[in-house]
Amino acid sequence: MVHVKIIGATGYGGVGLIELLSRHPEVRIQSLVATENIGKPISSLYPHLTNYCDLPILSADEVPDKADITFLSTPDRVGMQLAPGELKAGVRIIDFSGDFRFNTQEAYADYAGRIGLPTQHTAPQLLPEAIYGLTEIHRKSLSSKTRIVGNPGCFAVSCILGLAPAMQQNLIMGNSIICDCKTGVSGAGKKLNAAFHFSSRHENMNAYRLSGHQHVCEIERELAYLSNQTDLQITFTAQAVPLCRGIMSCLYGNGIQVLQENEILDLYRAYYADAPFVRILSSEDLAGTAYVRGTNHCNIVISVDKRCNRLRIVSYIDNLMKGQAGSAVQNMNVLCGFPESTGLAGTGMFP
Amino acid sequence: MVHVKIIGATGYGGVGLIELLSRHPEVRIQSLVATENIGKPISSLYPHLTNYCDLPILSADEVPDKADITFLSTPDRVGMQLAPGELKAGVRIIDFSGDFRFNTQEAYADYAGRIGLPTQHTAPQLLPEAIYGLTEIHRKSLSSKTRIVGNPGCFAVSCILGLAPAMQQNLIMGNSIICDCKTGVSGAGKKLNAAFHFSSRHENMNAYRLSGHQHVCEIERELAYLSNQTDLQITFTAQAVPLCRGIMSCLYGNGIQVLQENEILDLYRAYYADAPFVRILSSEDLAGTAYVRGTNHCNIVISVDKRCNRLRIVSYIDNLMKGQAGSAVQNMNVLCGFPESTGLAGTGMFP
Amino acid sequence: MVHVKIIGATGYGGVGLIELLSRHPEVRIQSLVATENIGKPISSLYPHLTNYCDLPILSADEVPDKADITFLSTPDRVGMQLAPGELKAGVRIIDFSGDFRFNTQEAYADYAGRIGLPTQHTAPQLLPEAIYGLTEIHRKSLSSKTRIVGNPGCFAVSCILGLAPAMQQNLIMGNSIICDCKTGVSGAGKKLNAAFHFSSRHENMNAYRLSGHQHVCEIERELAYLSNQTDLQITFTAQAVPLCRGIMSCLYGNGIQVLQENEILDLYRAYYADAPFVRILSSEDLAGTAYVRGTNHCNIVISVDKRCNRLRIVSYIDNLMKGQAGSAVQNMNVLCGFPESTGLAGTGMFP
Amino acid sequence: MVHVKIIGATGYGGVGLIELLSRHPEVRIQSLVATENIGKPISSLYPHLTNYCDLPILSADEVPDKADITFLSTPDRVGMQLAPGELKAGVRIIDFSGDFRFNTQEAYADYAGRIGLPTQHTAPQLLPEAIYGLTEIHRKSLSSKTRIVGNPGCFAVSCILGLAPAMQQNLIMGNSIICDCKTGVSGAGKKLNAAFHFSSRHENMNAYRLSGHQHVCEIERELAYLSNQTDLQITFTAQAVPLCRGIMSCLYGNGIQVLQENEILDLYRAYYADAPFVRILSSEDLAGTAYVRGTNHCNIVISVDKRCNRLRIVSYIDNLMKGQAGSAVQNMNVLCGFPESTGLAGTGMFP
Repeated sequence: MVHVKIIGATGYGGVGLIELLSRHPEVRIQSLVATENIGKPISSLYPHLTNYCDLPILSADEVPDKADITFLSTPDRVGMQLAPGELKAGVRIIDFSGDFRFNTQEAYADYAGRIGLPTQHTAPQLLPEAIYGLTEIHRKSLSSKTRIVGNPGCFAVSCILGLAPAMQQNLIMGNSIICDCKTGVSGAGKKLNAAFHFSSRHENMNAYRLSGHQHVCEIERELAYLSNQTDLQITFTAQAVPLCRGIMSCLYGNGIQVLQENEILDLYRAYYADAPFVRILSSEDLAGTAYVRGTNHCNIVISVDKRCNRLRIVSYIDNLMKGQAGSAVQNMNVLCGFPESTGLAGTGMFP
Repeated sequence: MVHVKIIGATGYGGVGLIELLSRHPEVRIQSLVATENIGKPISSLYPHLTNYCDLPILSADEVPDKADITFLSTPDRVGMQLAPGELKAGVRIIDFSGDFRFNTQEAYADYAGRIGLPTQHTAPQLLPEAIYGLTEIHRKSLSSKTRIVGNPGCFAVSCILGLAPAMQQNLIMGNSIICDCKTGVSGAGKKLNAAFHFSSRHENMNAYRLSGHQHVCEIERELAYLSNQTDLQITFTAQAVPLCRGIMSCLYGNGIQVLQENEILDLYRAYYADAPFVRILSSEDLAGTAYVRGTNHCNIVISVDKRCNRLRIVSYIDNLMKGQAGSAVQNMNVLCGFPESTGLAGTGMFP
Repeated sequence: MVHVKIIGATGYGGVGLIELLSRHPEVRIQSLVATENIGKPISSLYPHLTNYCDLPILSADEVPDKADITFLSTPDRVGMQLAPGELKAGVRIIDFSGDFRFNTQEAYADYAGRIGLPTQHTAPQLLPEAIYGLTEIHRKSLSSKTRIVGNPGCFAVSCILGLAPAMQQNLIMGNSIICDCKTGVSGAGKKLNAAFHFSSRHENMNAYRLSGHQHVCEIERELAYLSNQTDLQITFTAQAVPLCRGIMSCLYGNGIQVLQENEILDLYRAYYADAPFVRILSSEDLAGTAYVRGTNHCNIVISVDKRCNRLRIVSYIDNLMKGQAGSAVQNMNVLCGFPESTGLAGTGMFP
Repeated sequence: MVHVKIIGATGYGGVGLIELLSRHPEVRIQSLVATENIGKPISSLYPHLTNYCDLPILSADEVPDKADITFLSTPDRVGMQLAPGELKAGVRIIDFSGDFRFNTQEAYADYAGRIGLPTQHTAPQLLPEAIYGLTEIHRKSLSSKTRIVGNPGCFAVSCILGLAPAMQQNLIMGNSIICDCKTGVSGAGKKLNAAFHFSSRHENMNAYRLSGHQHVCEIERELAYLSNQTDLQITFTAQAVPLCRGIMSCLYGNGIQVLQENEILDLYRAYYADAPFVRILSSEDLAGTAYVRGTNHCNIVISVDKRCNRLRIVSYIDNLMKGQAGSAVQNMNVLCGFPESTGLAGTGMFP
């Protein structure tokens, strides 16, 4: 039985973990930590957890027993403060922010600068060993010895999974890539914000942060890693649409040679043959975010615009599952030697 | 291992069963029957089932192996045609329509007449042994010998569970009862209908069937059964609101004696002490359909309008779970001697 | 040309007024006042107003020219502070809060106490002359001499219009009345609130403030006024549903004598014969909040539950129009001697 | 006073026209024609029209008086059947389908073939005089002599308006253009369809018709016309998102020379200086479909991805207004010599 601690337990990331881990056969949630609502049972804030997880919310300085794994479902620059102490105590960490998605101070600074954060990492000595936790791409680097996982950004998951096979085979030109991504509102978390007030968001959609989104860095880094196309630069557009859960990313790239839809379908199916959560679909198959909602699956539709010799991939995930808590549990499973889909398999529900 | 057949597998009731039973540890889905899309795998219609249930859809006359239990997720007057054959073959049935919710031809005729159906039941000899499958109320009548369960209507579940303790204690006058019920759109099923076309339903709400809703019969019957108040007549208003899953029922009744909120809270908690899926809340607790969505729970809020000495109960369920497939599986569990919540426990997800 | 000032211009009430008055042929918006975003054009906050109203937002102490009418789209207890000064300067006021909905300090104290406000009105000398601005009921009291209008609460509008003819004819027993009311989320205004965060509200519905809603006072007062049933006490339940605009109120009352649906239809049609914004429907007519959305209309469906001899009225309005800004402009029209529907007529749009 | 006839009056296009024309000061709606619900008043199907337009629905062979203008809000291949008769009777037509968007049989055949229609136009002699009714682009071709207007497709409106200034100045390479377009569900009309059933559409989004959307033809034709870039081929992706009204199109194109955001802003503002319904926004301005909902406006956000020297335009319209009925009325105004915004100006409403 693995004992876990969740820091940042009252946000959507934390709640997603509780939902998954409260039914995980190999895990015991040991403690929940947050900065507010200290002392209240988590189920008073999230009543659907009643009788499933009624643990009290602890402050960071209350000292629960040592966990085996700590999930840091915390904002940027919190994980880097807490990681050294956790590691020193022998606890492995899975961090949800950008703090451990990069392996060098320089790469971190590029990321941090782009979103207006201080560029100096406070635990740079830990960066080299951090593993980027997109399990499908880095499964071989995740092991019983991994101490630090940087859980990927939700948009990044959808884009990288959608483009990885094409990039690895150098089918498309890196600098032609456009990621046009739409997210449900839960991606913005539970923090109140005029843009996500029901009345102003319902029956509204818009593009945002046109000047640059923080997930671009990790997408470019991973696509370059997969393709050996250095200096790869993509155009990325984030858009908010009025649903709760779901990311739909349309991914475009110009073919280096003539693209054949059937060949690419085969390529993708082979690439993901061992990935329990990736499903490859043709452009004739029924697709939509509803078919991955509440699950850890990523559905990827392959199409080629023949007239333009352009690859067009449509990638669907649940931003709170494969885009966040689901990926985190998937990483935990691999770190602990459990089958990758333990506690994660499930149909979701429709409608 | 119990082998089950699902007739009407391609409707929302059928899909809900597949979602639940594909993860039920004691069940094997043996066959899926429907009237259209014969031969296609169910997962081509409902892609979220891919890899979880890819069984083909069979027509009724294809003869699969005998099941232990057959779920009839079929419209009114289908179950009564199929039941005799199933029973003869030694199969137990759980029917989703009104066909087996009543124990006499007279009671059936009253129900059927109210909604414009032929009033003659075609298998009246089976009615006396049918059990009304609201597990919390009729658990003691459900046993290894039960052959026929009439699964309750979704509105009826919310109303009866919400009023049962008060009625049993004769706290309120039966003829003063008003059930003001709001349902999400999935309650209308997958059949296309102008009233449930996205564009006309989104940002719209309305009361419907003001002249009478079919669930009134079973509510009145059960409330009379619980209270010994004969000739009880209630006012019932069905309303459609623009969400997918969820029923919220406001239930009003005038106190026979002076009502005390705290005493009623205690009464309800005692009444449902052994019911794993009913949660009793005070008027201060956080409530909403979102906290039962995707689960088999019923959350019941107790309040008394002191000025009017009127009991006001607000009852929340997921119409497709506790209101349909969840209750069916709960009944199956009791029939088969499994713990009542086998394969049904779960937090759902929020948001 | 009437010159108007809008205080509280940046809330939904203020914006609704700007939308209506910017196309009103007899009105010129002179100034917009708010407590934040001072100096910015209103159209930078609400871009749909661009080119229609680009006035800057002023602080209260910037002194614009004297208006003919001031709309106070402000929270409780602001209007009572500002009213004396406006009136002294010869300006007539229409207030959106509860400040001028009652004619005595005692009635105000009852209202204020119920919602946890200080019970002492700060301008009690003005209460006797304030007119309750439900135009259909008090049209004869609104004249060129009216200086103060207390614009009614949104739920109250739907309930009072729905019950007025029945109460005036003493068809139903006042103490049997139950108002079961559902509102779209815009009724809560633009202030951020966890309950109205998109992710927690979408696909969620709930009853709230079960211990008492502030609109009960004015409903009871008006129903008593209409019926001469003193000491009338109603049960009122407020519910939030996931749409933006719309109130649907189900109104129940027990018949004093035998109720006949057709007679009541005739009664209602006669009562509202001269009301340009009230439409009376039978239970067979197509109804829904979508058919009044964006308009000043109130659609009222008449039905009788014969078995229980209970009147059931379903009343539909747009909470931001007939429930707020629309009623305010309607009152202004009457005060200024314009035809009642000037600048207010319109189909709205569907879907 | 212009007398108009609306054929196809009961679809969303027809209703949109009725909403607009019932308040247009220069228009009298003379007759409504449809293929079903003959004899019923339009307001019994669309109750929001009650008292504004209660005309009966006529069949095509009932002969109302000759109109000045006939709107053909009909499916593909209906307008071409009716146009000759209308023109012969001296009636001018504005057609909503693809029938009159092309000036040659060849161009029509290309369009029709792409969407599986017969490729032979039945009134090819009329094609040369048909004007493509995107008013902002073809205003000079619309005159008192115009007899036939082919109203543009909704996606096409958003794409062409968004790209026109850049194409006219040859800022971007035609073959690099990608139009990633998201539409609200009302774009699919009122016809029932499993994909637009509330329960399956709510909380769902997906790309569709990946093999080709019919609006591509007119976009390519217009962009070629504007830029003199012949053989221009674009990639177009249609996506459905769960809101009712609104199109958001992200339009990408690679710069031919180095792109400067400020210069392009100036260019766009100059290009649309005389267009009353186009607003040009910088990437810092507040944008969203909610700010054009219910209006004839098109809001266009300019941004440049400097790292990739790629132009990214985000174009927002209401698909039923500027995308359909609004454009049609705008065209009618120009044809009749009325100010272009007569009966069309308006803020819409927010929220």
